[in-house]
Amino acid sequence: MNRIPTHNDIETTHNKIKEFIHRTPILTSSSINNIFSSSLFFKCENFQKAGAFKMRGATNAILSLKNSKLKNGVATHSSGNHAGALALAAQKLGVPSYIAMPNTAPKIKIRAVQSYGGNITFCNPTLQDREKTLNKIVQETSAAFIHPYDDYRIITGQATCAKEIYEELDNLDYLITPVGGGGLLSGSILSTHYFSNSTKVIGAEPKGADDAYRSIRDNKIYPSVNPQTIADGLLTSLSDKTFNIIKKGIDRIITVSEDSIKAAMYLIWERMKILIEPSSATVLAVVLENPELFLNKRVALILSGGNVSPILKGE
Amino acid sequence: MNRIPTHNDIETTHNKIKEFIHRTPILTSSSINNIFSSSLFFKCENFQKAGAFKMRGATNAILSLKNSKLKNGVATHSSGNHAGALALAAQKLGVPSYIAMPNTAPKIKIRAVQSYGGNITFCNPTLQDREKTLNKIVQETSAAFIHPYDDYRIITGQATCAKEIYEELDNLDYLITPVGGGGLLSGSILSTHYFSNSTKVIGAEPKGADDAYRSIRDNKIYPSVNPQTIADGLLTSLSDKTFNIIKKGIDRIITVSEDSIKAAMYLIWERMKILIEPSSATVLAVVLENPELFLNKRVALILSGGNVSPILKGE
Repeated sequence: MNRIPTHNDIETTHNKIKEFIHRTPILTSSSINNIFSSSLFFKCENFQKAGAFKMRGATNAILSLKNSKLKNGVATHSSGNHAGALALAAQKLGVPSYIAMPNTAPKIKIRAVQSYGGNITFCNPTLQDREKTLNKIVQETSAAFIHPYDDYRIITGQATCAKEIYEELDNLDYLITPVGGGGLLSGSILSTHYFSNSTKVIGAEPKGADDAYRSIRDNKIYPSVNPQTIADGLLTSLSDKTFNIIKKGIDRIITVSEDSIKAAMYLIWERMKILIEPSSATVLAVVLENPELFLNKRVALILSGGNVSPILKGE
Repeated sequence: MNRIPTHNDIETTHNKIKEFIHRTPILTSSSINNIFSSSLFFKCENFQKAGAFKMRGATNAILSLKNSKLKNGVATHSSGNHAGALALAAQKLGVPSYIAMPNTAPKIKIRAVQSYGGNITFCNPTLQDREKTLNKIVQETSAAFIHPYDDYRIITGQATCAKEIYEELDNLDYLITPVGGGGLLSGSILSTHYFSNSTKVIGAEPKGADDAYRSIRDNKIYPSVNPQTIADGLLTSLSDKTFNIIKKGIDRIITVSEDSIKAAMYLIWERMKILIEPSSATVLAVVLENPELFLNKRVALILSGGNVSPILKGE
């Protein structure tokens, strides 16, 4: 697939992947709405299979492979949710998966890949070592490399999440998604363009990993160098494909502090009784830091994933 | 209300409280079902208003008061969820609430009562001091005392939870609920009697607070003396009203270790991405410790509440 996904591509993809993914619920919280005097709609991709929206794109990418290619399996490098999603999608289709995973990845994400039968090769948490390790795997196995986001099949899959939101909710003023490599954000921008006519799309990014913010501001892709954030899913930089879609369709990227990310995460845990990972909390952190922007507005927020292992105090 | 609630009482109560409570979802987890080779159905009262099933009974009790009595407000002693539920139900009806709360109650439960406008008087965590503090409050305010469970209005309210389960699911082999004072368990037994003909009801109790287990075994109510458990909602002892219903209708009470309670709680957090408090986890701990009993069975489990404040490791 070598062009920006069309309205029809997203429709077709949604139908193709439907039986492999959950249609996740959109939840509201009257107590959180009261705090901000806004109508917030949380799209719960933490309840998605493998615990994150990544299942959408990974499934679409695998289903797009020809059988002759598919039989050798799939490979990727990922610190977490794309790895788990690809391993699960491969398991469902009965083919092997090979993952180059940084040795700093959260244990819950490593356990998930293992439980889905993925073959993990650990590497150092640098892009260089990730790519080197992956290349070795691909040479040895002839598996198909599925990039976590610089791939229109992936972007089309992630776009189905916002499409589901627009199928259920009208007159949304804003849609906020986290931004790491930009797969979810670029897919959300495309679905907004095709399925909503007035919603503004905002990217939520940690201040400590603000390469996407600077890239859009300066109209050139900055690499993510030594990102410092609790949001372990947002450490990567934009790619050519995601950057080009985002720069055309984004309203703005808003950066948020680590304190706001934690406060937003704990607020969702406490009031909604659902577990979301830190990367997901960036979207509510944007509202927390900019309440005036969202006053009396209808806002959809994508809770991107729930792969986090909290503990009781004192444990 | 001075008799054991009837089929009609529970129907009427359910209709009366419907607009004040959530109809909570029943969730399943294919990965947890795979672990135990069982079909487990989790009734999510952690998503109930005020974060626990207690909202059902508290609402029914308040709605049962005459206006002349209601205007002075309501009072209780509670370490947590009944307090929060009573405060919220009172707030919705525009009357004051007064709560004697042990100074050892979890902070999240204290904050909840405060956020619902409840007037808290802190006391020592002994039954004696709780009752002394409560009596003083009632003398000063003429508020109506609403006991957390030794009250047929409360039991009838809690019974609506199991009724909802039987409205949605057929052919359940078992229903498992936590047991503290026995309000939820006795209500569940009544609804099982009226709305299901074959389901066996099991009470789940921490080994470190096993007074209900011993009470049923020896056919006499033991007080809960110095209970030691992480399940802070299950510290109380059975009362005359709950004991009499439970002893007639229970299949058995099964006690579980603290390690099993924690393992079950973390399993639900990790696989289902929902927050439940330790008391709720006792029901899955029963399955964890007795998998053979539930092999290939259809089992409903009531997740009684979600008022817990986990943290990220290292926070």
